[in-house]
Amino acid sequence: MKNPVQQYLEEIVEACAGTSGAVADYIPELAEADPDRFALCLATVDGRVYTVGDAEARFSIQSISKPFTYALALQDSGKEAVAEKVGVEPSGDAFNEISLAPDSGRPFNPMINAGAITTTSLLAGEDGDERFARALEGFGRFAGRELDVDEAIYDSELSTAHRNRAIAHMLREFSILEGDPEDVLAQYVRQCSISVDTQDLALMAATLANGGVQPRTGEEVLDAQLVEHVLSVMTTCGMYDAAGDWVTAVGMPAKSGVSGGIIGVLPGQVGIAVFSPRLDSHGNSARGVTLFERMSHDMELHIMHVSRGSRSALRASFPLSQARSRRRRTTAEQEALDRVSDRCRVYELHGDLLFSGAESVVRSIVDDDPELAVLDFTHVNEIATVSRQTLIALRDRLRECGAEAVVVDPGEVIPDPDAGTDRATRRFPDVTSALAWAEDELIRRHCGDLTTSDPVGEHPLMSGLSDHASEVVRAALESREHADGEIVLEAGGDFSGVHLIIDGRAVACAEAPDGSRMNLVTMEPGTSFGELALGTEDVQETEIRADGDLSLLVLSADSIERITEDDPAVGLEMWRAMARDGYRVADKALRRGATRLA
Amino acid sequence: MKNPVQQYLEEIVEACAGTSGAVADYIPELAEADPDRFALCLATVDGRVYTVGDAEARFSIQSISKPFTYALALQDSGKEAVAEKVGVEPSGDAFNEISLAPDSGRPFNPMINAGAITTTSLLAGEDGDERFARALEGFGRFAGRELDVDEAIYDSELSTAHRNRAIAHMLREFSILEGDPEDVLAQYVRQCSISVDTQDLALMAATLANGGVQPRTGEEVLDAQLVEHVLSVMTTCGMYDAAGDWVTAVGMPAKSGVSGGIIGVLPGQVGIAVFSPRLDSHGNSARGVTLFERMSHDMELHIMHVSRGSRSALRASFPLSQARSRRRRTTAEQEALDRVSDRCRVYELHGDLLFSGAESVVRSIVDDDPELAVLDFTHVNEIATVSRQTLIALRDRLRECGAEAVVVDPGEVIPDPDAGTDRATRRFPDVTSALAWAEDELIRRHCGDLTTSDPVGEHPLMSGLSDHASEVVRAALESREHADGEIVLEAGGDFSGVHLIIDGRAVACAEAPDGSRMNLVTMEPGTSFGELALGTEDVQETEIRADGDLSLLVLSADSIERITEDDPAVGLEMWRAMARDGYRVADKALRRGATRLA
Repeated sequence: MKNPVQQYLEEIVEACAGTSGAVADYIPELAEADPDRFALCLATVDGRVYTVGDAEARFSIQSISKPFTYALALQDSGKEAVAEKVGVEPSGDAFNEISLAPDSGRPFNPMINAGAITTTSLLAGEDGDERFARALEGFGRFAGRELDVDEAIYDSELSTAHRNRAIAHMLREFSILEGDPEDVLAQYVRQCSISVDTQDLALMAATLANGGVQPRTGEEVLDAQLVEHVLSVMTTCGMYDAAGDWVTAVGMPAKSGVSGGIIGVLPGQVGIAVFSPRLDSHGNSARGVTLFERMSHDMELHIMHVSRGSRSALRASFPLSQARSRRRRTTAEQEALDRVSDRCRVYELHGDLLFSGAESVVRSIVDDDPELAVLDFTHVNEIATVSRQTLIALRDRLRECGAEAVVVDPGEVIPDPDAGTDRATRRFPDVTSALAWAEDELIRRHCGDLTTSDPVGEHPLMSGLSDHASEVVRAALESREHADGEIVLEAGGDFSGVHLIIDGRAVACAEAPDGSRMNLVTMEPGTSFGELALGTEDVQETEIRADGDLSLLVLSADSIERITEDDPAVGLEMWRAMARDGYRVADKALRRGATRLA
Repeated sequence: MKNPVQQYLEEIVEACAGTSGAVADYIPELAEADPDRFALCLATVDGRVYTVGDAEARFSIQSISKPFTYALALQDSGKEAVAEKVGVEPSGDAFNEISLAPDSGRPFNPMINAGAITTTSLLAGEDGDERFARALEGFGRFAGRELDVDEAIYDSELSTAHRNRAIAHMLREFSILEGDPEDVLAQYVRQCSISVDTQDLALMAATLANGGVQPRTGEEVLDAQLVEHVLSVMTTCGMYDAAGDWVTAVGMPAKSGVSGGIIGVLPGQVGIAVFSPRLDSHGNSARGVTLFERMSHDMELHIMHVSRGSRSALRASFPLSQARSRRRRTTAEQEALDRVSDRCRVYELHGDLLFSGAESVVRSIVDDDPELAVLDFTHVNEIATVSRQTLIALRDRLRECGAEAVVVDPGEVIPDPDAGTDRATRRFPDVTSALAWAEDELIRRHCGDLTTSDPVGEHPLMSGLSDHASEVVRAALESREHADGEIVLEAGGDFSGVHLIIDGRAVACAEAPDGSRMNLVTMEPGTSFGELALGTEDVQETEIRADGDLSLLVLSADSIERITEDDPAVGLEMWRAMARDGYRVADKALRRGATRLA
């Protein structure tokens, strides 16, 4: 089945295949480019690459080197040192204007030639050769492969670089460049001659889209903070004197080159590259600009496009009464929880907790004013610093009111500054265990001592029996002990009777669809296990293990058969009680499923 | 409990309360402003407003009027007509530079005075008075309340507006302005004198953040496309000659005014306004700039901040075997579904389906290649045009392969271009009904005729009985008919027996936590209802209705008691069968809950 995204990209490339514009001719080698070459490549932040047209045709990177040189200069020399030598203000000038601030000689920004020549000199290295090696290796990290130089382009370009030579010497005059300007110029021209194809550029752009992490190699090529900085400058200065038009019409940080390439970055989503050598009057690829305008419009890629999704990070919120742990409770506990369980609320968060998302979560919790708040971060990808701080502040406020917030955070997205101290936030690996804690805590806070004095007599299977039947059944109970971790019932075994927990806990485990083992239920004194096998053709489906030392009273399968045969009247009472118990468990389970699905 | 967001905002206002900068003095009235006033206001896109400091202090809007005048001009005169008169390119010049393109006299952009005076003339109205009335009413819609003019400021400003008067006449000279430039100038100065407080500005900004919809009134004040355009121009030109610094350091579309206000817009999240009359050398509020830099950094509000949340729109995807409808199936159907249910997959989408989100969904489906795909849009907020088109294309590709995609779309976020034709996409109001359809479809496609020939004999309650017991029970069954919609069992009634469905369907309904009625289960021939009441102290908890004409065979509560008393051996068999049935239903329900929670 053909991927519809691929199909769409092929269609728009066809729709934009006009023939306006002319190939750059100020450098003899560039004038020889095939004017009809046309390629589009789109790389997602998880490394999927879509290509259309001549995506493997090589060309020199030219001015698209500028944002990457700037990025490497920021990394090698630091933001402050770079800011001393080159500004970040749009100049409104064409790409080859000298554009230096009148007093300091500081180039307006790193996307015009003067600024780019300056940043070239700020890469790590003792001389032009070393700094060039740094650029070549750095660009390769962005692209995810080793790159090389088109020497013919380099020779051709260096011999005709009169204007750039003038700029370099002017920069030297103002001491913006230090050392030999010819050395920097040669390095600059060599950088512009690095050979790439459209896919390389798309992946370089996708690395910026991905916060500086190369989508395929996974390498952190650039610090995320510097990525923001580079993208900002590309937004205001990337398209020369057409920057304002570009921002309004396309709305994506971008950079074009005179060989016919344009890259665009949609933060968090994709990197896009187009290659078509025919240029418009601003020196940008004519078909490239058309294609970007079309894609931005169709695909709603404009950075100012208002996405309503960011409004709420709260996927759902509900009282404990609608969730309940899968811990089996005694009737007394269950009744107690029915009274107080609305005092605990669960908040399911999702997506990225940016400021506005965290704000809406905090507002909900402040409004609900729960006694226990379970914050479920399972589906949260990333959490902004301010969100983290705000949520910690919320936890502290809740504590001041005698309330408590706990987190479910299997991915450890929200580190706790108080970890290891007695102020640490209680953390749970899954919602079920958090709910079990919350139930225990509510019972502890509000329901006094619910320890059952007669776990056998209060069990639903026994409580409905006549005195005589109860006596017969009690007499048949066998006492058993299991040590922590012992398997009490094996999955796949035969029905072996009803197991009443007198002391300790047992857990039921099963294999998850992905093959892993998961704990389904934790069972406490007063509850029972084993009887569900009656519903599955006498096969015990789950494995039961002791969770700590475990004391049981067992009404074995043999005893059940014996009573049924020897004393049919008691047998009938017993089976009737089991039927009621079966439907009771069924009703509870169905009801829980229904509530949570609603 | 104090909201921690409020607390945070109070803290940063305190931290930024320096005293550098001086109040504007070029207009006598402005020089009288209290230099120590300081207010911060933050408005979310759903209308929650946080304020700190002198949030109700009034001041004249000054240059913060510019983006809103531009917005109204775009709406009144259209993008093209406005573009003829004023550009969108950053000029790199200060706010009061004349900055006209040398040939055409066209101002570079609408955020400098020359451009703003021009857009003022492009509002709807015959003369300055009418156009001013339009501006006042329009600004009021953004703020969500009626605004008025500070006449003292207006008089003071008009009498000293020498430079703006020069600009207006120069614009008239180039025919950028038509008619009397004094009329436009008076209107412009009046607009700048509109009186606002910090909360008004925050809500005006939040209206832009909210795609043009005023968060509190819900009015669509500006078309979403024009919002993108206005925000783009604010990004590149909003902060005068400090625009580049602002974009790199703050990274938010913004506008400042000489009276000390600054607004910032974070698309999709919040509008922010600061008021502090002391200005820096660029004419921007000194404490305002510091506060915005601090907030942008702390709160990660930079528009280029890469959010990983946009990576995937796919919340979960699983085969039908892990979901299953709540339709009760006969044993034969259940066995058939166990074989084929992996051919159907459910895709739960969430958030905004921007391009990259839709791409990841499409890629998953192409890779899985399911025979039936259920796309659940319940948690999708918004869907980009390209995503809609891509998903329709995917549906068509699936059809070509004999497969089918259906949607669950209660909020109708994805309209179907083929609605009403035989190519229409099948739509369901909830996942359960989609799953029921998918199960039926898989059975129809792969499992031949599964109609049960003996719905009574195949029921689990009967199939385990001895011949004698089966005969006794069958003899006790009573035939009943119900018309469509009839209530068969009332919620709250006593246990009234086991109801076997012979023909037609029945639905179980219950009250949802929010008071609405919801369908819990649909039951088909071969299944039964009523017996769950045995698990809830003989109380029927759900209401059962006929869904179409319904034929039943009922083993009444009286018959069950009679058999139990008259023929204890048969009674014992019957209760034993019910116990097994109870645990069978319990096991299934618990298992489903466990799988879906895993």
